[in-house]
Amino acid sequence: MDKVIDHGQVAEHNAKLQQNLDADYAALGSILARRGQDIEQLTAKAQTFAVALPSWGVGTGGTRFARFPGKGEPRDVMEKLEDCAVIHQLTQATPTVSLHFPWDKSSDPAAMREFASKHGLGFDTVNSNTFQDQANQEQTYKFGSLTANAKAVREQAVAHNIECIELGRALGSKGLTVWVGDGANFPGQHNLRGALERYLDSMRDIYKALPADWLMYIEHKLFEPAFYATTIADWGTSYACANELGPKAKCLVDLGHHAPNTNIEMIVARLAQFGKLGGFHFNDSKYGDDDLDSGSINPFQLFLIFNELADVAQRDGDAFKPSYMLDQSHNVTDPIESLMSSAIEVQRSFVQSALVDRKALSAYQENNDVLLAAQTLKQAFRTDVSPILAMARARSGAAIDPVACYRATGYREKQATLRPPKAGASGSGIV
Amino acid sequence: MDKVIDHGQVAEHNAKLQQNLDADYAALGSILARRGQDIEQLTAKAQTFAVALPSWGVGTGGTRFARFPGKGEPRDVMEKLEDCAVIHQLTQATPTVSLHFPWDKSSDPAAMREFASKHGLGFDTVNSNTFQDQANQEQTYKFGSLTANAKAVREQAVAHNIECIELGRALGSKGLTVWVGDGANFPGQHNLRGALERYLDSMRDIYKALPADWLMYIEHKLFEPAFYATTIADWGTSYACANELGPKAKCLVDLGHHAPNTNIEMIVARLAQFGKLGGFHFNDSKYGDDDLDSGSINPFQLFLIFNELADVAQRDGDAFKPSYMLDQSHNVTDPIESLMSSAIEVQRSFVQSALVDRKALSAYQENNDVLLAAQTLKQAFRTDVSPILAMARARSGAAIDPVACYRATGYREKQATLRPPKAGASGSGIV
Amino acid sequence: MDKVIDHGQVAEHNAKLQQNLDADYAALGSILARRGQDIEQLTAKAQTFAVALPSWGVGTGGTRFARFPGKGEPRDVMEKLEDCAVIHQLTQATPTVSLHFPWDKSSDPAAMREFASKHGLGFDTVNSNTFQDQANQEQTYKFGSLTANAKAVREQAVAHNIECIELGRALGSKGLTVWVGDGANFPGQHNLRGALERYLDSMRDIYKALPADWLMYIEHKLFEPAFYATTIADWGTSYACANELGPKAKCLVDLGHHAPNTNIEMIVARLAQFGKLGGFHFNDSKYGDDDLDSGSINPFQLFLIFNELADVAQRDGDAFKPSYMLDQSHNVTDPIESLMSSAIEVQRSFVQSALVDRKALSAYQENNDVLLAAQTLKQAFRTDVSPILAMARARSGAAIDPVACYRATGYREKQATLRPPKAGASGSGIV
Amino acid sequence: MDKVIDHGQVAEHNAKLQQNLDADYAALGSILARRGQDIEQLTAKAQTFAVALPSWGVGTGGTRFARFPGKGEPRDVMEKLEDCAVIHQLTQATPTVSLHFPWDKSSDPAAMREFASKHGLGFDTVNSNTFQDQANQEQTYKFGSLTANAKAVREQAVAHNIECIELGRALGSKGLTVWVGDGANFPGQHNLRGALERYLDSMRDIYKALPADWLMYIEHKLFEPAFYATTIADWGTSYACANELGPKAKCLVDLGHHAPNTNIEMIVARLAQFGKLGGFHFNDSKYGDDDLDSGSINPFQLFLIFNELADVAQRDGDAFKPSYMLDQSHNVTDPIESLMSSAIEVQRSFVQSALVDRKALSAYQENNDVLLAAQTLKQAFRTDVSPILAMARARSGAAIDPVACYRATGYREKQATLRPPKAGASGSGIV
Repeated sequence: MDKVIDHGQVAEHNAKLQQNLDADYAALGSILARRGQDIEQLTAKAQTFAVALPSWGVGTGGTRFARFPGKGEPRDVMEKLEDCAVIHQLTQATPTVSLHFPWDKSSDPAAMREFASKHGLGFDTVNSNTFQDQANQEQTYKFGSLTANAKAVREQAVAHNIECIELGRALGSKGLTVWVGDGANFPGQHNLRGALERYLDSMRDIYKALPADWLMYIEHKLFEPAFYATTIADWGTSYACANELGPKAKCLVDLGHHAPNTNIEMIVARLAQFGKLGGFHFNDSKYGDDDLDSGSINPFQLFLIFNELADVAQRDGDAFKPSYMLDQSHNVTDPIESLMSSAIEVQRSFVQSALVDRKALSAYQENNDVLLAAQTLKQAFRTDVSPILAMARARSGAAIDPVACYRATGYREKQATLRPPKAGASGSGIV
Repeated sequence: MDKVIDHGQVAEHNAKLQQNLDADYAALGSILARRGQDIEQLTAKAQTFAVALPSWGVGTGGTRFARFPGKGEPRDVMEKLEDCAVIHQLTQATPTVSLHFPWDKSSDPAAMREFASKHGLGFDTVNSNTFQDQANQEQTYKFGSLTANAKAVREQAVAHNIECIELGRALGSKGLTVWVGDGANFPGQHNLRGALERYLDSMRDIYKALPADWLMYIEHKLFEPAFYATTIADWGTSYACANELGPKAKCLVDLGHHAPNTNIEMIVARLAQFGKLGGFHFNDSKYGDDDLDSGSINPFQLFLIFNELADVAQRDGDAFKPSYMLDQSHNVTDPIESLMSSAIEVQRSFVQSALVDRKALSAYQENNDVLLAAQTLKQAFRTDVSPILAMARARSGAAIDPVACYRATGYREKQATLRPPKAGASGSGIV
Repeated sequence: MDKVIDHGQVAEHNAKLQQNLDADYAALGSILARRGQDIEQLTAKAQTFAVALPSWGVGTGGTRFARFPGKGEPRDVMEKLEDCAVIHQLTQATPTVSLHFPWDKSSDPAAMREFASKHGLGFDTVNSNTFQDQANQEQTYKFGSLTANAKAVREQAVAHNIECIELGRALGSKGLTVWVGDGANFPGQHNLRGALERYLDSMRDIYKALPADWLMYIEHKLFEPAFYATTIADWGTSYACANELGPKAKCLVDLGHHAPNTNIEMIVARLAQFGKLGGFHFNDSKYGDDDLDSGSINPFQLFLIFNELADVAQRDGDAFKPSYMLDQSHNVTDPIESLMSSAIEVQRSFVQSALVDRKALSAYQENNDVLLAAQTLKQAFRTDVSPILAMARARSGAAIDPVACYRATGYREKQATLRPPKAGASGSGIV
Repeated sequence: MDKVIDHGQVAEHNAKLQQNLDADYAALGSILARRGQDIEQLTAKAQTFAVALPSWGVGTGGTRFARFPGKGEPRDVMEKLEDCAVIHQLTQATPTVSLHFPWDKSSDPAAMREFASKHGLGFDTVNSNTFQDQANQEQTYKFGSLTANAKAVREQAVAHNIECIELGRALGSKGLTVWVGDGANFPGQHNLRGALERYLDSMRDIYKALPADWLMYIEHKLFEPAFYATTIADWGTSYACANELGPKAKCLVDLGHHAPNTNIEMIVARLAQFGKLGGFHFNDSKYGDDDLDSGSINPFQLFLIFNELADVAQRDGDAFKPSYMLDQSHNVTDPIESLMSSAIEVQRSFVQSALVDRKALSAYQENNDVLLAAQTLKQAFRTDVSPILAMARARSGAAIDPVACYRATGYREKQATLRPPKAGASGSGIV
């Protein structure tokens, strides 16, 4: 397969680090062996991990106050795919890309498929956008899209979603993620129930257009851009709607879309129990939908989510295949570096959750031995599995230290030359 | 009917205030008439309002740090009923009492019914208690009740709930409210899904014991006494469980049981839309389950909840009969005064919501005239309907100014003599 | 004085409403008289109220997701002043405008002063902007401004603030408001203490440039645009910095800049007690810095803030002159309508706080009569002072119903023709 | 020195684990060496760590709903000291005990000193209690203590604090921690500024009574037991008061006493910068003042706090000696087990913070290399220093696995026999 980064550069990078990695790996292996755990199994498991990249994540994000673009940002979907290929090449953990329409609408989908396939990339779920007005759009979404009072607006929004399905189909996607910012800024602006009734009507029309092997992911969010009431504000609403819509409708959990103090891993458990856990938008946050790098603020929470996923997997087995995606806004870092690091952080939680002795945990729970139950999770969490992750990369042909390798290649500087910023470009959007 | 307070005292009190009330009422009536609204209709509506009293609310509450008892606190259920009779006599807004077992278990239910009926009181839903251990109890609830790992604990908790139904039946109640504090203080303590599975199993057993004309109310709460994960933590879980259990299971909304920043009126709208809005525990809060007097912290929120209820009533008509109860903890006020004032605050929101011009509101919403839609609610909210509430009381034989009238009767001082505190009494409990 | 709106239109509008207003005013007057309060005094007090307009508030705001512009938006500072003149003409409550540089930098300040003075407008505090990069700016604020690690960045930010003082001086302003979004998105990005040390160094340089009769207002905010740590995040930091800087440095309270559940009126009391309460940015919010219309979400909170201000005024008398400004983002309403309504909402709280019987309140507090103390505030809050506010406007030559009058003038439609949108305009910015 | 647990039992326990520990220690040492770090230095540092035990923490805690006592709970201060001695013996990390008066008032302080000294224990800061009424107390704290309107109440509270100083002096303590729950449950209950003025007056009287070598620690808390406004609610108020009182007044940070989303490590940095960081009450929480085991909910936050402390230590050197204490409520675990584990969790963060390469971190910060700055902290945090902590214990004569060792001794079962519960005992209180 072609690679964006020269394969030799990765090999050279790895060669320098391999010896130390081998030693660290052996040391960790011996520690794990004394606990009765087999490092090789864990490494094999790490190699199976995959999380999708958001096409919009490779551009620099921003806030309502400002956006501070970086050098060499991708200017179209092909350049975004190129950056995604780098990330996957250096991590081997991100084999799919999630597109956002109309941002990523291309006049040449065949070229996209060809490029993607050449670089080992596939296409994950597609995302519709009815939270912005596009140039030359008939109806405005200022007062809502799928929930708008005006029928013409709702029809336009439904048609856009159906077009997204068609665009995704052409690329091999198997799912549609629907996030709408629809809501009210004032008490009284909306009839709260009426808005949800219209939402369900619109979603039923989209649901009907889903191909047989597609799923539809409903994404809830507490607030922003609506600041008083958001129509799909919480998992309860998402779940009730997914129930109304049918078996192809699932709930998507974005880690930053909840009220303060919410126990997110319990929401994961609930959705799994009731058969509606669709997948994740991974990121981290301290205040609201901050869209920070996964695991950067509360890594234990990320682990606890994967601990729930391990529980579901044990219970439901192969039937359980949630969709994983990174959804972050990179305001002060190189997006490629953040996405590589974040994919690895999610993978870290995945591997750590495999360290949990579920049989012992169950026994402690059964006996109300609260302290040892808690310590069973903590011990798994505090195990530093970095050598496992690095070895998994090395064995898969990725970089032992992806950020260092990436910097060494000079990729960003090269793009700074090849991709001069467009005049007036205000960035690639943020979800 | 007998009255706890001498009827002459109330009449004398009213006589002094009637003239000013008439003048205020006329002034307000003229203002409303210029807006096209008929004060008499509103007063008649106000007279229909009723909210249940919590038997445990007439004692002084407390926190985990301390309880500072007041004078003349009721020491048993008959004395609690006596205090409730005072509240209803002076407000005519609280015709039912909600009992909590085993706290209110009586050896003489017939005497309770007779006393209640003599004072115009009935019995609202009954409440079970599996969050405390009672003396001589076989199994401890330290590690949960309906969700406990141990079957014997769950069976004891189920049996207690079934006993509550029987006790309530003997008194004429028609519903059982189930709140459990079950949850975990540590990640790992519970298998989150297993706990809810056990909860559902236990609840199914209780559900089977419900008489044909009874409802079961599921009460959720974010946290406390469990501080990491509460099994029934949010409306989503409550709703999913009510769905699993059947048509007699409904969701109960306590205003203080939500995450920070939650839009509670939207939860009301959602539960109504999906047919599961059972009723309310009214109180107010700033931080957590503070159990402050209704409307004392955020009166606009209380109004917005009643605005939703008015919307439901308009849509669903007579079919819609949610259960209303006060559930407060009175730590620094005379509980009788707080309950009277709080009943009136809830009644105030009920009357204010009737002032909303729903037709105009709908039209503004339809036209995206956000500002006037918002102002339609604000105008109703800022109308001071105090004269309407006072006139409704006067016409129903209650006190124009219940707190002043109550103080004038010297009821509390009399009880301070009649009800010397029991040694070591630590109060009547708090929910 | 010239008026943007023809005076005859306002007179005609008022003529139609005067009779009903007189009747409502008399009815309210009689109710207040029975409580021992003189409506004329309150109306006279209402007429003294003034709050500044933010120049950026007359444009449609937006979020990081989208901005949906309205018709006839102002395209430069002169057009913004024109809109402000309309607001002041119809409310007589907004006699000053607060400018934001460089957005409002004009090549002809004399024309600005002349226009303003002709329309009864003055200039409030000026605001610096170091949270965005401007075209042709040497240094980027991507990694901070007054706190930046790079000395050249800090010097540029200081120089900009000093330029703002000069620009404000030429217009008659007397204060500089400094809000910086500086902070970190990741643990480790900043040395937390080092950042504040650099902030203080920068601020000392700006402080030195303050004219003798100027004040400097430090504005804190919990988060956004920084999502892990904001250098000036809370009132404690603001207060400590104001203390370090000297007597001309004061703290500014924006109602949306606090952690969830924060008691803002207590912060007001604290800053007043310690001599550092500088002023307010009024708005309302449910989740974060939502910048909604003042009093639209939690009107009781706004009242409680003014209740504190009444307490300070009683204690500190004339010495106490906090700065009042509206600071809102109008995403779904006509900004002129929202600003008029919001000015009136703030004025409403100002008048309601004058209804509090402070002597009675003190006595209840002294006697621990908690219930009557609380009801003293509630009674003032629930008094509908709308007729007082309308009469104050009528007597001052403003409109009895500003929104209705404004709509009747057709001002917005006229501007839609006169002010075609600039190509690529992305709005006037949001603070 | 005498030991509560037979020394031979600890030795026997350690003997079984030593070989595996040596192997794990060597493996970790080799990994650290490859990063240029010396494990021996870290182990030596770990051995210097000390955190105080709260005397009230060895009893089972509770909530306002219930307390579920455990077996063999201590019934007086001597039994509490005995449990503390076990904790220190098995961890060698908790050489001091913090007493709470009047709970721990003893008729025989000499016996306390003797027992303590025999078991290697000293006495940390003492804590006053004016949030509860004690039997035979003249004045009630129902409406406040140091802030009460009634002078007699304030005088009683001041006198109690001064008595605490005297009691502490007799035991060798060097500090007084003052936490008051004083506040209001209703808007209007307090004059917010008046309450703080009275607080400061009361505190000035206590301050005067401080011995020359004592410090006074002011502890703030957002809410509970007051639910509308707490007089000392945030670090800003605490800091302003400490400033007013003088150099012996410092601020104490309890990790659970903040608003949701608060960045606590930044508060640490601020208090250190302004010379007022007194110390910590360590615990963890998800919702409010949950008082869970340290590091059990958000271990990264605990690490970030120690990262700030490492920064302060580097800047301020030996002058910087904050007071460390555990302050937890153990509702579902054996308190001895929780306190041992928690002491180790705090020690873990202390050691991890020593792993941060501060020079590299500074350089990344200086260069705005945000990603590598963040990863510098993350790498230190994810290093599993368990072998270092265990080796430090082994070398200090404590247990390699304190919980396992404790269980093996049968200490709890023995106490269950020796300490039958007192009738009506409601526990040892919770802060």
